[in-house]
Amino acid sequence: MPQEFATPQDAEDAYYDAIEDGDLNAMLAVWETSEDIVCLLPMQPLVQGQGKIREAWGQLLQSGVKVDIEVLHLHWIQTDDLAIHYLREKVNLPDQPQQQPPIYATNIYRKDGSGWHMILHQNSPAAPPPGMMPGMPPQ
Amino acid sequence: MPQEFATPQDAEDAYYDAIEDGDLNAMLAVWETSEDIVCLLPMQPLVQGQGKIREAWGQLLQSGVKVDIEVLHLHWIQTDDLAIHYLREKVNLPDQPQQQPPIYATNIYRKDGSGWHMILHQNSPAAPPPGMMPGMPPQ
Repeated sequence: MPQEFATPQDAEDAYYDAIEDGDLNAMLAVWETSEDIVCLLPMQPLVQGQGKIREAWGQLLQSGVKVDIEVLHLHWIQTDDLAIHYLREKVNLPDQPQQQPPIYATNIYRKDGSGWHMILHQNSPAAPPPGMMPGMPPQ
Repeated sequence: MPQEFATPQDAEDAYYDAIEDGDLNAMLAVWETSEDIVCLLPMQPLVQGQGKIREAWGQLLQSGVKVDIEVLHLHWIQTDDLAIHYLREKVNLPDQPQQQPPIYATNIYRKDGSGWHMILHQNSPAAPPPGMMPGMPPQ
């Protein structure tokens, strides 16, 4: 069941906590109950609608891979009932100490009678920073 | 100088036309005149602000690579002054007849006194469909 989030940031905090905790119910509570919702993770097929998003996150969270995600907000746009957060995710894998390339993400939240919920998550892998990959020219 | 687009779709049509025509001025006319605008192309560094976006598109459009882009709209969200278009781009390169993997994109437009303009373009490469790459298991 969706939780009632008072602000888009509350929903966003719950989204990243759910990933770190591997908690599928907490993850689903962040999303609007709708067939309109859309989630795209790097190099994964697009998933749309509550059922498909439950299935995709179920598989990801049950993999048991521990992740720690640092989020850097790059840009926010907010109206009365729509919030767009553009950010950079730095994913740390405790079992793999080498640095991961950054990931850029757009998170969109919508407000309805039961508070703010995520309606879109799109993330995009970025080119590794200079020096991270052997043989990559500095930019 | 930005053009005055009456609808988000007019701005979107102009964006894809500018890519196909290799026309930097037409491309820049689609974007809001602002330091807030954000553009992320697949595996490219993020660019933010009018100056950086001009530079990035200048380099891309001057490469002279001919592209033809078919756009499939997946989902639209629209308020009085904000429009979010979520879509799939099928990029055809006339000089390279083999099919390209699909690209998912979010385009966000904002309305101000001079009409609708793009404020965010993010696109993400997707995994190639089954059968496109030899050795890829069907999904």
